[in-house]
Amino acid sequence: MGCQRRRTSVSGALLLPRLLCLLCFAVISLAENTEMVNVVTERKAEESHRQDSANLLIFITLLTLTILTIWLFKHRRFRFLHETGLAMIYGLFVGIILRFGVHLPQDLSDVTLTCAVNSSPTTILVNVSGRFYEYSLKGEVQDSKGHDVPNAEMLRKVTFDPEVFFNILLPPIIFHAGYSLKRRHFFRNLGSILSYAFVGTLTTCFVTGLVMYGCVVFMKVIGQLGGDFFFTDCLFFGAIVSATDPVTVLAIFNELKVDVDLYALMFGESVLNDAVAIVLSSSIVAYQPEGDNRHTFDGSALLKSLGVFLGFFSGSFAMGAATGVMTALVTKFTKLRDFPLLETALFFLMSWSTFLLAEACGFTGVVAVLFCGITQAHYTYNNLSAESKSRTKQLFELLNFLAENFIFSYMGLTFFSFQHHVFNPLFIIGAFVSFSSKMFMLYSCILAIFLGRAANIYPLSFLLNLGRKNKIASNFQHVMMFSGLRGAMTFALSIRDTATYARQMMFSTTLLIVFFTVLVCGGGTTPVLSLMQIRVGVDTDQDNSVTAPDGMTQRSTKHESAWPFRLWYTFDHNYLKPFLTHSGPPLTSTLPACCGPIARCLTSTQAYENAGQLNDEDTELILNDGGGLMYSDMMVSTDAHGMPTPSTSQAGLYSLAGTSDDPLDRELVFGGTRLVLPTDEPPDPLTSFPPPPPSPPLLDPLRHRV
Amino acid sequence: MGCQRRRTSVSGALLLPRLLCLLCFAVISLAENTEMVNVVTERKAEESHRQDSANLLIFITLLTLTILTIWLFKHRRFRFLHETGLAMIYGLFVGIILRFGVHLPQDLSDVTLTCAVNSSPTTILVNVSGRFYEYSLKGEVQDSKGHDVPNAEMLRKVTFDPEVFFNILLPPIIFHAGYSLKRRHFFRNLGSILSYAFVGTLTTCFVTGLVMYGCVVFMKVIGQLGGDFFFTDCLFFGAIVSATDPVTVLAIFNELKVDVDLYALMFGESVLNDAVAIVLSSSIVAYQPEGDNRHTFDGSALLKSLGVFLGFFSGSFAMGAATGVMTALVTKFTKLRDFPLLETALFFLMSWSTFLLAEACGFTGVVAVLFCGITQAHYTYNNLSAESKSRTKQLFELLNFLAENFIFSYMGLTFFSFQHHVFNPLFIIGAFVSFSSKMFMLYSCILAIFLGRAANIYPLSFLLNLGRKNKIASNFQHVMMFSGLRGAMTFALSIRDTATYARQMMFSTTLLIVFFTVLVCGGGTTPVLSLMQIRVGVDTDQDNSVTAPDGMTQRSTKHESAWPFRLWYTFDHNYLKPFLTHSGPPLTSTLPACCGPIARCLTSTQAYENAGQLNDEDTELILNDGGGLMYSDMMVSTDAHGMPTPSTSQAGLYSLAGTSDDPLDRELVFGGTRLVLPTDEPPDPLTSFPPPPPSPPLLDPLRHRV
Repeated sequence: MGCQRRRTSVSGALLLPRLLCLLCFAVISLAENTEMVNVVTERKAEESHRQDSANLLIFITLLTLTILTIWLFKHRRFRFLHETGLAMIYGLFVGIILRFGVHLPQDLSDVTLTCAVNSSPTTILVNVSGRFYEYSLKGEVQDSKGHDVPNAEMLRKVTFDPEVFFNILLPPIIFHAGYSLKRRHFFRNLGSILSYAFVGTLTTCFVTGLVMYGCVVFMKVIGQLGGDFFFTDCLFFGAIVSATDPVTVLAIFNELKVDVDLYALMFGESVLNDAVAIVLSSSIVAYQPEGDNRHTFDGSALLKSLGVFLGFFSGSFAMGAATGVMTALVTKFTKLRDFPLLETALFFLMSWSTFLLAEACGFTGVVAVLFCGITQAHYTYNNLSAESKSRTKQLFELLNFLAENFIFSYMGLTFFSFQHHVFNPLFIIGAFVSFSSKMFMLYSCILAIFLGRAANIYPLSFLLNLGRKNKIASNFQHVMMFSGLRGAMTFALSIRDTATYARQMMFSTTLLIVFFTVLVCGGGTTPVLSLMQIRVGVDTDQDNSVTAPDGMTQRSTKHESAWPFRLWYTFDHNYLKPFLTHSGPPLTSTLPACCGPIARCLTSTQAYENAGQLNDEDTELILNDGGGLMYSDMMVSTDAHGMPTPSTSQAGLYSLAGTSDDPLDRELVFGGTRLVLPTDEPPDPLTSFPPPPPSPPLLDPLRHRV
Repeated sequence: MGCQRRRTSVSGALLLPRLLCLLCFAVISLAENTEMVNVVTERKAEESHRQDSANLLIFITLLTLTILTIWLFKHRRFRFLHETGLAMIYGLFVGIILRFGVHLPQDLSDVTLTCAVNSSPTTILVNVSGRFYEYSLKGEVQDSKGHDVPNAEMLRKVTFDPEVFFNILLPPIIFHAGYSLKRRHFFRNLGSILSYAFVGTLTTCFVTGLVMYGCVVFMKVIGQLGGDFFFTDCLFFGAIVSATDPVTVLAIFNELKVDVDLYALMFGESVLNDAVAIVLSSSIVAYQPEGDNRHTFDGSALLKSLGVFLGFFSGSFAMGAATGVMTALVTKFTKLRDFPLLETALFFLMSWSTFLLAEACGFTGVVAVLFCGITQAHYTYNNLSAESKSRTKQLFELLNFLAENFIFSYMGLTFFSFQHHVFNPLFIIGAFVSFSSKMFMLYSCILAIFLGRAANIYPLSFLLNLGRKNKIASNFQHVMMFSGLRGAMTFALSIRDTATYARQMMFSTTLLIVFFTVLVCGGGTTPVLSLMQIRVGVDTDQDNSVTAPDGMTQRSTKHESAWPFRLWYTFDHNYLKPFLTHSGPPLTSTLPACCGPIARCLTSTQAYENAGQLNDEDTELILNDGGGLMYSDMMVSTDAHGMPTPSTSQAGLYSLAGTSDDPLDRELVFGGTRLVLPTDEPPDPLTSFPPPPPSPPLLDPLRHRV
């Protein structure tokens, strides 16, 4: 609502002083009665509004149909087509109908003004018979193409502003992903996930870009390419297709209860590489060598791009984390938890403001929202009342579900209705096997993407396995390779800018790639899982190191608990968690004595009560190889408040199971399809947890490590 | 998002054939390098996007502040300023800062095109150096005034499109109102509520309009009025200020647990008169006598207006009811309840589609949404799974809360920032006591509104009391008179069109009236309640006919159970409820024998199980004066399925208490401030309800009637 950013073209980008605006006055023709003009204008506006409502109604109907079909599929346990694929197919049908079936009379209400302006400003004032009307820029239209297709007007109406995707539909999806990270397994594999997300995405981007560039050069040599296609364009394409989608595959993983480590690797990588891909694509756009040789290599421009990448990423990260921390502080120090509605509203508004703040400061809102989600889940979630916990989860689950299905149905619809397509869909369908320059491009793109993905997964896994004790097995690698679907993020990035020939070609290709991966890879996940002998039906909280047939054979967190991570966990556990939440050890026991008054002021009363249950799931990660818990000494030291603290590390081990974070881990959903039931368990694990059995399955990993 | 309707002016409205569009081509000046132009355009778009984000951030910050202050007020049990008043005051401060504090450099990016067009189309194509850019109409700007104020650009940015209020913010508020109607007490007072809503609102509208017209004529005589102000304008003003706001007062009523009948009367009237006021204002706009005498009386135009009123109202009602019924059918006949997320999404989408459908067909979406909400609460709610029940309630509660507070903060902000204000705010503050034409207008407006409200409440209550056995006591009438706040609906209706002098004056006055009523009447509710000796602390489900000091002394539903209502309830209970929900008697027992197969097909298995508990809260209304239940015979007849059906009407009476509708009645919130806790009670009242005490308070009304 009022925050759509409209990029009309991004082709070149020289830094120039802003053009002074031209005020061109011409003859005012006071043609008709003003009132008559008003009436006509008003009727047109009403007509346009009706048309808008009808268009939105098409999408709502599509979504409703999708929901009903999803239910039918779930009801019949049909897993070969996921809801996103379904939404896409429905969209496709409606797109075909709109394109070829409906014939509306051409709307003649457009007036073409041709004036001597040499820029296209965001707002123009039009002087109509002495009254000034304000118009805002909607975008460039391809005048020649726009009137070729039969229902240009209708199709143009159904086409949304691309920035709607980026500013309205993506943020809830990304926030939900961050908010629902299964943190225990995520943090255990943090090193590998970060490697895949950063090193891997960069590799994919460059390999895809290089392969594409090779094809482009080849095409240019044989004279088959119709427009400009530079190396930066290829790299940009590499960046946008390197964003893998967490939705489809993970929904299936979740339903089948696949191995937790594979899940954590896939999920963590998918979520983080979205962020990397956005920032990377912005950096590539920012790569603009100065002077005349605008498409050759330039070291300083590269450095600038690198600076942009680091700046955008760290800035967005900082903003997301900052608002998360602020929400945590507000929910901790006010008694807002007595009013779940207010609490939920505050949570929602603060999370939304992250996006706006980042955008207002020129950073990437979507990335900020991701880190805000992670921070909210890690800290704020613990402060919320039980009702707000379920409310916030359900709210973002619903928003995520709606946004996701909307994007996928729009993708299907846009396949036939988008005006900038460089391919001819009928041609592709009719002559799929025939060789043409465009088909060659498409095939080479698919090849480039697979090569890029392979260059990400296999070498990196090999390198990571050198350092990991619980190796990433080759069947895991194959599944990760196969499951790299492209989805909402790739679409949003590619539709954002369709000004130049190269970008239009990219958009069309991306759409085909999304279709291909969602339908083929998404549908093939279940067979591939069984082919690769991946264990399914694993309880998320139960470990599988002993029984996994050929998965990670030896469990250790040596790599994950390398010193920077260990340092961070210690800091987080001792200072941040007690400062921001009601859990963790009281600050009075972790801060030096000189900070006593401040520590007492900042520590909540619950923290003293929690003193006995020092360990949360993160503790697992900072285990030393030699065995024993890092905090075992602390546990003994905090019994000054008369709480029954267990004095042996064995008791500490048992208390791991029921920290307040666990319900989140267990309940938060990933694909928008698992059902969430409200938590009724009391949060205190020491009283509610049954006496530990001789060999509780939950503690297997620890016992192996100790 | 894409459904904003833009009215630029509504001043006159003659039915004319659509003007053919003019395509005026002029010289194309290929002025500069296209790429440079693109870069500049893009940078401007980015700048504009940042500014938009920053503006939205202002509102989010305002809302966050409001939430924190609300919490503080609730925490300290401070009741003299409601959250909406608070949001308004915060908005006022920010408006003052924006208007007088911030000085941004004037943005020179606007280009004024003056071309020979004699209409202002909704979209124009601008030919810039050979490329075509599409612009959409934002509205008319007052060129002369727009540049008088220091921060015109800034203020214009903060000003939202009025249609945002109507299409995005109002629907959730109105839907929530419908969805949370306390149906038992609502239906018991249905006759009075409908009278207040229809007859009362019409009276208010005409009385206010007439008083206003008197003032206008007086002002014209003494030569103090600056512009045109016709009788239709006065009536329009009467229509928009007759919409009373259910939010503020009812939040307080709810918190204080005020008498249930007063609550039901106030709530029902407020909700329904919003619908009446919208349709009425549209009808008045549609009143356009033909020919030259355009502002005199014309019988045929009046009839047309009446037709518009009836058509709009019944059309919107039918659409709302139809989608509600469809949702009920879908949720009944699919097993969607196994997947609460899908169910909630479907519920949300269907409710939203009501709005879009009505708008697409040219009806009033907001009115349709209200009746959709009522239908959903009456039928669909019973079919939902327990989790979806709480999810949908919480979702709409949150949306309502956010939308409402947003509107009220915007109102505060717009007080100083809106460009079309006809009053000078500094002047009013500085010289509040001095007499001027504008202040006279304002005072006369307030007078007109109070007279209009009085003409609604007192005569109607007198007439109603002739027919009612439980009279509406005079203290109830005084409270209803006093509590007629004007809020979101009045604001949305008045900001929708600010083209003419009269409408701008109305907008300014309306804003002042909203401020006045929300702050004075809202803040004064608690004192007035105690002054009027209204009983507070009443349990909603408990009746108060015996103990109320001078309230409704004798309880009977004679008036309410007049034959049309009785007929409706019989039909609803016997056919609609069993058809649309799982409750009620099985259709096999109510439909004639010839429809047996259809009836068996349409009746759900739960209906047979429910056969024992035939009565729901509505049954209460169709009691005959002679005593006994209308359905007592039916109850005996439906024990063919082996269910333990009570055979005496006394047992039937007791089973009234725990129908599946009760949790909704008890839990749904009205002002967006009461807290909702999830229901854990099993739905079967026969097993879970304790054995009735000798004189259960819940059954008092029945016992009085029997």
